Amino acid sequence: MIVILSSSATERNRADIVDNLEARGYGVHVSVGVEKTIIGIIGIGPEEKAEITDQFEAFPFVDRCVPVSAPYKLVGKAFRPEGTIITVRGVVIGGQKAVMMAGPCTVETEEQLMESAHAVKAAGAHILRGGAYKPSTSPYSFHGHGVEALKMLASARKETGLPVITEVMDVRDVEVVCEYADILQIGTRNAQNYNLLREVGKVQTPVLLKRGMSSKIEEWLQAAEYIASGGNHNIMLCERGIRTFETYTRNTFDINAIPALKELSHLPVIADTSHGTGKASLVAAVTLGAFAAGADGAIIEVHPHPEKALKDGAQSLTPAAFNDMMQKLHQLLPVVGRSF
Amino acid sequence: MIVILSSSATERNRADIVDNLEARGYGVHVSVGVEKTIIGIIGIGPEEKAEITDQFEAFPFVDRCVPVSAPYKLVGKAFRPEGTIITVRGVVIGGQKAVMMAGPCTVETEEQLMESAHAVKAAGAHILRGGAYKPSTSPYSFHGHGVEALKMLASARKETGLPVITEVMDVRDVEVVCEYADILQIGTRNAQNYNLLREVGKVQTPVLLKRGMSSKIEEWLQAAEYIASGGNHNIMLCERGIRTFETYTRNTFDINAIPALKELSHLPVIADTSHGTGKASLVAAVTLGAFAAGADGAIIEVHPHPEKALKDGAQSLTPAAFNDMMQKLHQLLPVVGRSF
Amino acid sequence: MIVILSSSATERNRADIVDNLEARGYGVHVSVGVEKTIIGIIGIGPEEKAEITDQFEAFPFVDRCVPVSAPYKLVGKAFRPEGTIITVRGVVIGGQKAVMMAGPCTVETEEQLMESAHAVKAAGAHILRGGAYKPSTSPYSFHGHGVEALKMLASARKETGLPVITEVMDVRDVEVVCEYADILQIGTRNAQNYNLLREVGKVQTPVLLKRGMSSKIEEWLQAAEYIASGGNHNIMLCERGIRTFETYTRNTFDINAIPALKELSHLPVIADTSHGTGKASLVAAVTLGAFAAGADGAIIEVHPHPEKALKDGAQSLTPAAFNDMMQKLHQLLPVVGRSF
Amino acid sequence: MIVILSSSATERNRADIVDNLEARGYGVHVSVGVEKTIIGIIGIGPEEKAEITDQFEAFPFVDRCVPVSAPYKLVGKAFRPEGTIITVRGVVIGGQKAVMMAGPCTVETEEQLMESAHAVKAAGAHILRGGAYKPSTSPYSFHGHGVEALKMLASARKETGLPVITEVMDVRDVEVVCEYADILQIGTRNAQNYNLLREVGKVQTPVLLKRGMSSKIEEWLQAAEYIASGGNHNIMLCERGIRTFETYTRNTFDINAIPALKELSHLPVIADTSHGTGKASLVAAVTLGAFAAGADGAIIEVHPHPEKALKDGAQSLTPAAFNDMMQKLHQLLPVVGRSF
Repeated sequence: MIVILSSSATERNRADIVDNLEARGYGVHVSVGVEKTIIGIIGIGPEEKAEITDQFEAFPFVDRCVPVSAPYKLVGKAFRPEGTIITVRGVVIGGQKAVMMAGPCTVETEEQLMESAHAVKAAGAHILRGGAYKPSTSPYSFHGHGVEALKMLASARKETGLPVITEVMDVRDVEVVCEYADILQIGTRNAQNYNLLREVGKVQTPVLLKRGMSSKIEEWLQAAEYIASGGNHNIMLCERGIRTFETYTRNTFDINAIPALKELSHLPVIADTSHGTGKASLVAAVTLGAFAAGADGAIIEVHPHPEKALKDGAQSLTPAAFNDMMQKLHQLLPVVGRSF
Repeated sequence: MIVILSSSATERNRADIVDNLEARGYGVHVSVGVEKTIIGIIGIGPEEKAEITDQFEAFPFVDRCVPVSAPYKLVGKAFRPEGTIITVRGVVIGGQKAVMMAGPCTVETEEQLMESAHAVKAAGAHILRGGAYKPSTSPYSFHGHGVEALKMLASARKETGLPVITEVMDVRDVEVVCEYADILQIGTRNAQNYNLLREVGKVQTPVLLKRGMSSKIEEWLQAAEYIASGGNHNIMLCERGIRTFETYTRNTFDINAIPALKELSHLPVIADTSHGTGKASLVAAVTLGAFAAGADGAIIEVHPHPEKALKDGAQSLTPAAFNDMMQKLHQLLPVVGRSF
Repeated sequence: MIVILSSSATERNRADIVDNLEARGYGVHVSVGVEKTIIGIIGIGPEEKAEITDQFEAFPFVDRCVPVSAPYKLVGKAFRPEGTIITVRGVVIGGQKAVMMAGPCTVETEEQLMESAHAVKAAGAHILRGGAYKPSTSPYSFHGHGVEALKMLASARKETGLPVITEVMDVRDVEVVCEYADILQIGTRNAQNYNLLREVGKVQTPVLLKRGMSSKIEEWLQAAEYIASGGNHNIMLCERGIRTFETYTRNTFDINAIPALKELSHLPVIADTSHGTGKASLVAAVTLGAFAAGADGAIIEVHPHPEKALKDGAQSLTPAAFNDMMQKLHQLLPVVGRSF
Repeated sequence: MIVILSSSATERNRADIVDNLEARGYGVHVSVGVEKTIIGIIGIGPEEKAEITDQFEAFPFVDRCVPVSAPYKLVGKAFRPEGTIITVRGVVIGGQKAVMMAGPCTVETEEQLMESAHAVKAAGAHILRGGAYKPSTSPYSFHGHGVEALKMLASARKETGLPVITEVMDVRDVEVVCEYADILQIGTRNAQNYNLLREVGKVQTPVLLKRGMSSKIEEWLQAAEYIASGGNHNIMLCERGIRTFETYTRNTFDINAIPALKELSHLPVIADTSHGTGKASLVAAVTLGAFAAGADGAIIEVHPHPEKALKDGAQSLTPAAFNDMMQKLHQLLPVVGRSF
């Protein structure tokens, strides 16, 4: 880490900083410039970096602290350069295989779920998605059928053989969701709910961690570090669009994040282009784009009758549209060295 | 609500929509334009609006749905036009009185807390702030002393007479925090943690609800509606800066939100200019600005030795700087018809 | 257009609005709701919409005006549903053909330009890019060689046969740039420099219009409408990344904009993934993504020696990396029904 | 400046960088860390910093370059710590005096302008604003009366004695605008139109430089540096709101920028709260906030009949509302050591 002193810093200030750091056991390099002095700190870990930054930036004679290395370790590329591969009931996520997760936004009825499950399986999906607990901006909206929906997901898995992924929103529900689901989803509104991250770090069920709608890539990796530091290394990073000034689309799908994560981390990257666009008419194009850019998988909302969906109908594909997209993906994947 | 049909919509599509709405019992007005047809729905509440929007926007022949009235009721201005006044152990929040909450970011030691509490009381603060549970971007940072810190806050209240406010981050902690604290703070990272909002809606302890760092004003009011719809109407809205492209400051303090909330809602508005700027050197100026713009109160980080703070030292005022600011506020408040 | 009255509007207010609109010759539909009244205006064009919105929103009894149709005509999809095809010295832009524009950020020397031009031609590029006039954030940076550079571009065209594209920044330079260049580029900082847009609307040289770094898609199409309304319909829309809170990348490449523009407009869409990412290591992945999502072409910075580039070296590909990317694109394009 | 090498950099890479820098005549300090090596460059000016950053970041073995000092000189605080004072026909801008500029968005008719001018003068404004050339998102909107409007402004000045400020949008108009106006305004859409900045840098007429709607504070100061480096040091910085995700207001007025600019620069800071909010109902509150936070002045849209305004009626104050605000400002200014 580098500490940049203010122009007004005195020699005494500089000596104080150096003493402070040496007393903590760090190596120190001082470089006196024309306008400003910079102090390099050798051998500092992510643990102390945040603390020292907070303290030093409070000194009036410190301009700012600049981190030199990443504030995460376990999820960083260097920790496992060959990349992480997660296997869920025989479905491989990461590596050469691409994965497709699909299904309705929300589990509404046994019938709707089964119809969806069969449709996405027929089109080649590998994992079934469906919400049992739903975050809604309005307290008056539908919030999911909870445990009943979890049971329906388990039935659908039994009938189709597809592993299931579903969101967990509450620390008190982690246990029950783990009982029924194969992958835990952490949603964008809980992407920095650190207590929930800690709880899913204590189990071994794989976690799909959505990006916070205003999380920087670095913060997102730190959120993943919460899970990993608890002991659960089965983490997927899911880009789902960020909040920007653009209003034509619901979110701005950050395609840059896909190759960026591939150079920063060893974790598989999944594209949620349903939320990333918010418009069914844009989903197929952006999903093709995401796989072309190196995504390891996608998670797509498919509803047999989008116009009857209780949530997010506007961004759900019909089974027919989903099937068309899958056909194109089969052709596209070999171009980037992948296959379903 | 208004439904705007696509240019490609047929007369049959239009008739279907009208039938659908009339079957639900709504009044309907159709207005056929040159390019597009619009359908007005009469008598729809916030409950059904979200649902109908989701369903209708999934129809290929619907362009979009436009809400005409606000998606919240209990926290809307019309619900209590005279404004909400909350009284906490004799301290009045809202109305003609302005309120100052101050103290360290984090409760570190009994000594640090007491020193802070006496300092802010001496300078005229009305309520003591201090974090027992701290959200941190990094899992390796300090996360607060928990219940021990709650007890120290209670001791500080006993010694100084100042009511205390502290953050609650976990649904499982609501009960214990209510036991010790006078005001519950919901932080920006939990601003859309709906289960936590529901839990604090079940108690009567006042809640200070921070704005999500990327929440629109409307979403923020919907988050408050979660609390109110649970039965707890003692809510304060705390503007703490939003995330933008600007990097010189930690956040962008949205001063517009202050008069905007005053025209949309009856709830008191509190300014957190410490997080809103992230730089101690900017706090006093922006706090004066916030009160001049109509804020009912402010919450400010003050630390006796910012350079020794375990968190957020860079944005903490010294007691002397806090005192200077309070002097100016005493002069400024009468200009806007207020006083401490 | 729809006018939504405030809850406080009286019957008299409503009658005034209706009279005002009828006096202007518009058809009017009034729909009285429980809380609010809405007024639909029939037969209003983009010209009057902006004016009426400005005037009506100033009335205290008007809540807001909601446009129903798009604020542009000539560049809208309906104007030419089959799509625009532009031919530049035999190179086809739009339609089934994909196009690659490549070359150095800035024309530095005759030698550097020729080396670049031969390299990108050898790798299969169709059009040569190179800056003669360069916008720089700092007044102390390099600003391009101007007319000298234009002449070098013309020489490079003569030698390689590649048409050339270069930026014009100043209304006074339009004439001279048209003399040498085959395509005029309008940069992101001039994306709302309306006088410059009007000037390039008066010529017939094709224009590549970059998106403003904070332009909404609708504003961008209105900027294109400036050019088209002047008589120049040879316009390409170039997505080059938008400004967001993310700092790991220079900009956020908005891949959603590609299919969105395809449904809103008939103009060809070009992807500038060099600026869209700002990092050479991300360019190939995001370019593949852009073509997979339906882009008609790309514009890429290639420099024979990026580490010696006077500008934007960090985002320039080497000829070898560019060549690799072109190989992959040849495989990818048929998947989306395209070819070079 | 600091160069941070990648973890993969070899000793040879390091030596090359050092040789490169020493050959350019800079002092160099190398600090070898556990993970990464950093190289400090001594004695580098803003001119070379941009160039070296561009070149070095293109090396695969360079992680990034970190500037240590500001990329502007003439407009930086250190250049004139006592602050700049600009006098326009006897009106003092900067220092202890606060200034109020007011008038209609657009000069529409002689009558409208005179009525506005007398109204704002009566309420205590010091400078008359009014647009002769208007940037509009739509090519079909009104664009101002040009020279005719400039002449009306000069007449209004003659009649009221108020100096006038008006926008210049085109390099070809700088001369004629200087002939009639006392202050040149550079609008937000031209905030990075560098050729226009250079042109207004060649004259001595004071310039009010609006912030680009997505300009960082540092970029804005660099834009001001363009003007100053041309020889015109009579510059005011005008905060007019930035573009964010919030849609309730037209822009987000960045009040943080006011004290931030006061610590970074010596130039006077003016608040445009009309555009900063976009809603007449919020203007007074935010203007009070801006002055309380240290603004040197404000520029406010006032229209005798906002509902008849050709542009921006929704954000224009009536003369009565403007007068009320001025009364409050008279009371507020002494609190921050200022007066009109």
